[in-house]
Amino acid sequence: MAYDDMRKVDALILERLDSHVELIPELARYLIEAGGKRVRPMITVAAANMLNYSEKAPLQLAAAVEFIHTATLLHDDVVDESGMRRGKVAANLVWNNASSVLVGDFLFARSFTLMVEAGSMKALGVLSNAASTIAEGEVRQLSAVKDITTTVETYNQIIDAKTAALFAAAAEVAGIVAGRSETEETALRTYGRELGLAFQLVDDALDYGGAAAKLGKSVGDDFREGKVTLPVALCLQSASGEETAFWERTIAQTDQSEGDFEQALAYMAKHDALEDTLDQARTHARQAREALEIFEANPWREALADLADFVVERAY
Amino acid sequence: MAYDDMRKVDALILERLDSHVELIPELARYLIEAGGKRVRPMITVAAANMLNYSEKAPLQLAAAVEFIHTATLLHDDVVDESGMRRGKVAANLVWNNASSVLVGDFLFARSFTLMVEAGSMKALGVLSNAASTIAEGEVRQLSAVKDITTTVETYNQIIDAKTAALFAAAAEVAGIVAGRSETEETALRTYGRELGLAFQLVDDALDYGGAAAKLGKSVGDDFREGKVTLPVALCLQSASGEETAFWERTIAQTDQSEGDFEQALAYMAKHDALEDTLDQARTHARQAREALEIFEANPWREALADLADFVVERAY
Repeated sequence: MAYDDMRKVDALILERLDSHVELIPELARYLIEAGGKRVRPMITVAAANMLNYSEKAPLQLAAAVEFIHTATLLHDDVVDESGMRRGKVAANLVWNNASSVLVGDFLFARSFTLMVEAGSMKALGVLSNAASTIAEGEVRQLSAVKDITTTVETYNQIIDAKTAALFAAAAEVAGIVAGRSETEETALRTYGRELGLAFQLVDDALDYGGAAAKLGKSVGDDFREGKVTLPVALCLQSASGEETAFWERTIAQTDQSEGDFEQALAYMAKHDALEDTLDQARTHARQAREALEIFEANPWREALADLADFVVERAY
Repeated sequence: MAYDDMRKVDALILERLDSHVELIPELARYLIEAGGKRVRPMITVAAANMLNYSEKAPLQLAAAVEFIHTATLLHDDVVDESGMRRGKVAANLVWNNASSVLVGDFLFARSFTLMVEAGSMKALGVLSNAASTIAEGEVRQLSAVKDITTTVETYNQIIDAKTAALFAAAAEVAGIVAGRSETEETALRTYGRELGLAFQLVDDALDYGGAAAKLGKSVGDDFREGKVTLPVALCLQSASGEETAFWERTIAQTDQSEGDFEQALAYMAKHDALEDTLDQARTHARQAREALEIFEANPWREALADLADFVVERAY
């Protein structure tokens, strides 16, 4: 049934991508079909099922959540580019900039139309707040790029805003439309937030190969872009001398050459930075599971709890 | 009192720009304080006053409308750049791209928070639809840049979406929160839409100096960027031979040199393109005024009617 529900959400997503302006469904469909684990809408759907609430509203809100996420991804293309390819933007990339911005705006607007159809003003408030918090988190992240004074605390605030806020809202809105108590809404919000924090920490560890520091094709983006994620922030707080100079050169100045990434991994091994990052992810995943304990046990509660485990296991 | 109301809207705008992330209020405030005639929120405020509706909701919706408009302006910076400076984007411009995208997203999200506070689901639906229509219009406009096969009809569809949709929504939502009939809502929507069309046509004529084709400092942007606005589309539909080659070179290839803008003006004079553009603007302004006739005459109705005249008079 959750599988059925997710198929309905997918159908709703494809239906609402539609526009007489061809570029929009083309680009958005490419992104939505290519991408993704659909983790965020799954949270909304599974939470509504856990609460035995089987109306249409959670499906509409789940689709809205995925639209907000996809809009953010499209806008990230523009934002990340500025970190990576400053001053060297090829024409086709710039055209892509324009379409990324506009198609993102379209999806963002459509997400609110879906929320209106879901009919809950309170859910609308929660999701619009999440959307402004995401933008705030992205601005802060932008300021933290290449900034080796970024602390662990700042990093945590950034991921709380840019990632965990939407996970939290995705879970909370299920409780809202199901008409649950403030306590249960808060528990769902906590579940989503902790899951989101675990998810982002694992992502950031995976960018350095995860627990085993395995080098793969999708590894090293954050390092190349000079992003100060937790593994780097943990090294920085204990670094001195030669190591500080290394991070200054590779992150602050993004002046990198062959062997630097391997050197970064060696420093991370020295400080247990990846293990510590994943320990924190595990702690958040456990807190996510614990937040569910106030709900009656049922297969959907199990599915949500398993999701928390799954998010962390990716890293091993 | 409308003056008082507009001050309240301004206060609300400044209040809701606030964020603990400093760059956001800085950049947004700069744009909002520098910019603008506040035409769109004024429509909402004056329409609510015309309907003797003096609650807070129209002020919140007026602020939301200005936020949507400002978000669009910020995102336009990124989009226009792609037309103008393809492949030659300086580093600071790209950083500006990132902040324009993210601060725009923040404003867009905040606009929905304001709508939630206004408390009307129907108004939310109208404004979220307007927002997706704007994005569609911008995408179509992007495809029409440097495209000299763009017809008058396509141009009209583009400005209906990218400009008139928000004007229409700004007027309509006042009728919605005031609880007026479908007929009155439609009349307000028509007023806003026609005013928006007039506004955009005048803007496009002013980019070629307006009725007198007076050359000033803010003239010629559309020409330089290869935008096919109505004055150009009108020339194109009657052009042949040497003139067709001229538009092909200057617009389709944006290969321009000194004297080309003056030559464009000469072709426009030959085809009465600026006069025709402004005639169409006058027709829309008259239709805007006529749409107001179903409402009881009062000073606010006059103010809205005068706004339609004012919009066109800018061009003379």
